[in-house]
Amino acid sequence: MKKWEENVKKVTPYTPGEQPKKEGIIKLNTNENPYPPSPKVEEILKNTDYRMLRLYPDPAISSLVDALANSYGIKKNQVFVGVGSDDVLAMCFMTFFGSGKKILFPDITYSFYEVWAKLFSIPYEKKALNKEFELVAEDYFGENGGIIFPNPNAPTGIELSLEKVEEIIKNNQDVVVIVDEAYVDFGAKSALPLIEKYDNLLIVQTFSKSRSMAGARIGFAMGNEKLISYLNDAKYSFNSYTIDSLNMHLAKVVLEDETYFKENLEKIVETREWTKKELKKLGFDFWDSRANFIFASHKKVGAKEIYLTLKEKGIYVRYFEKERIDNYLRITIGKEGEMQDLLQALKEIVGKRKML
Amino acid sequence: MKKWEENVKKVTPYTPGEQPKKEGIIKLNTNENPYPPSPKVEEILKNTDYRMLRLYPDPAISSLVDALANSYGIKKNQVFVGVGSDDVLAMCFMTFFGSGKKILFPDITYSFYEVWAKLFSIPYEKKALNKEFELVAEDYFGENGGIIFPNPNAPTGIELSLEKVEEIIKNNQDVVVIVDEAYVDFGAKSALPLIEKYDNLLIVQTFSKSRSMAGARIGFAMGNEKLISYLNDAKYSFNSYTIDSLNMHLAKVVLEDETYFKENLEKIVETREWTKKELKKLGFDFWDSRANFIFASHKKVGAKEIYLTLKEKGIYVRYFEKERIDNYLRITIGKEGEMQDLLQALKEIVGKRKML
Repeated sequence: MKKWEENVKKVTPYTPGEQPKKEGIIKLNTNENPYPPSPKVEEILKNTDYRMLRLYPDPAISSLVDALANSYGIKKNQVFVGVGSDDVLAMCFMTFFGSGKKILFPDITYSFYEVWAKLFSIPYEKKALNKEFELVAEDYFGENGGIIFPNPNAPTGIELSLEKVEEIIKNNQDVVVIVDEAYVDFGAKSALPLIEKYDNLLIVQTFSKSRSMAGARIGFAMGNEKLISYLNDAKYSFNSYTIDSLNMHLAKVVLEDETYFKENLEKIVETREWTKKELKKLGFDFWDSRANFIFASHKKVGAKEIYLTLKEKGIYVRYFEKERIDNYLRITIGKEGEMQDLLQALKEIVGKRKML
Repeated sequence: MKKWEENVKKVTPYTPGEQPKKEGIIKLNTNENPYPPSPKVEEILKNTDYRMLRLYPDPAISSLVDALANSYGIKKNQVFVGVGSDDVLAMCFMTFFGSGKKILFPDITYSFYEVWAKLFSIPYEKKALNKEFELVAEDYFGENGGIIFPNPNAPTGIELSLEKVEEIIKNNQDVVVIVDEAYVDFGAKSALPLIEKYDNLLIVQTFSKSRSMAGARIGFAMGNEKLISYLNDAKYSFNSYTIDSLNMHLAKVVLEDETYFKENLEKIVETREWTKKELKKLGFDFWDSRANFIFASHKKVGAKEIYLTLKEKGIYVRYFEKERIDNYLRITIGKEGEMQDLLQALKEIVGKRKML
């Protein structure tokens, strides 16, 4: 190793789900929305004056921040926007979790939390979910350097009740508590109303799932104006212009098409509930997901085998080779037809095994 | 101050140039390109299938990375892409400057360097430019934790010869040396060929200036594949999907329209040289800029006064209230007509003063 290499920050990065470029596959592995964003996006793209790209975007992202404040009934200075919720969360780890004390998050959760903690040299402790894969609020009451958890949790899809969420916040008013609500729109309760009561609470959401804009890279945080102001200082110390002009504009339009948004969510929730029934018939066990995915395990056939066989058939689901969850599959809710194809394929895999 | 606030990372952010929303102003304050990007962008925007926005972008940004490698005659694994060159540089500071030793950069330079050093708690030493505002290569030969400088330098526009650049690299093979070439396309020599000779050299460039894509947020780094691989690890530990689908595609198209690019540059260089002559006639002193701006000072009228009077007239230039340079204006090269208006305004300001 050369001398300059000795001082390089070496990290083990997060591995995102596969983004296969093949045509004709059924992609149920990265929790994308199966439906496109509001058709108003098309109009905007056709009518945008491309010449404005020569100018820097508004560094304050005002039009989108205003639209978010308006849509969620909060103040402008309670909103922070980043390059997807991953960017928002990275900024949060960098800004709020530097006390030197251990931050807390569940053992089974979004695996990026551990990567950020390592990147910023933040000590951490993983609190085990119980046997039912539920987060135990009391485990988060001791001294710590901050708390983060998703609600609904990923990859389980299980919702923690708002009462339990509030208990965690109430018992941790000396540190920043982040509730990562990437999937909340699919049927869970948001802790957003609590930001008026707890100035140390930050809610993080995204346009990538419920608003069908994964390709646009827009996430946001909502919280007390002090938290937001610290986040903005960090952003302006890292990169002044994070959100490009085009997507800033598209996100605003998508946000304002409430009707389309609700219809989209209804379809996905309906397909999810139907899929649950069908999976049950095939002998799958799973948690009662409130997200746009189902975390399922089969009584007889191993998850890895199912994952690989589905892949051969051109159906991608997510499999994590990790302790406690290595017999589960995370299946994103696709269009009805895609789920029918998935269930047909699962029937073949599971049925064949029964006969052996 | 609440207890949770005590452990917040508090930083003093970089202040970007104003982005006034007023119509009809002449904007020569943030070094944007006065001409739009390649008209091929318009075609793409009109023909994009907006439905693809529901999917995550390719995290490896392959199409753009391939196009850059092809355009610059290097290998794919020698290219890193980020959200503007600020994002690339922030990642570099985080990844390469953690030895604990002082990193070195000029006292008069891009002021974001100091902000990043503070954000990541990197010790630093500013090396004074000489009286002619030139970077003195020998000042960078001592022990240090890394080196960064722009070439041409900002806000002076002065180019450091390739020989001097190589001397700095040659004398610093144990640390990472970053040459920030945001403005290199406007007539300076790139150190890119040296990446084959020095594996610790990183070249950073951007689509924001010479390629008229400030609104798209695309920057890139070129260097030895090991450097690039470390940068990618850091990126994947921070945010897997940094570049959105639309701009990834637009940047590729812009990059490939070489003819438009060269014509655009020629016009700006021509206007710059003409502006220099005219400024001289009005009694301005300035350095021989190789960038798309001129850093000028008037023999009799103070820079701040000129800056404020121009602003009243609807002409925005950049003024830095900083030691050594507080009597200079950084004037971006606009369209010919804009520069004529600027010179007319300057003539009035400077002429009036002569009569007092």
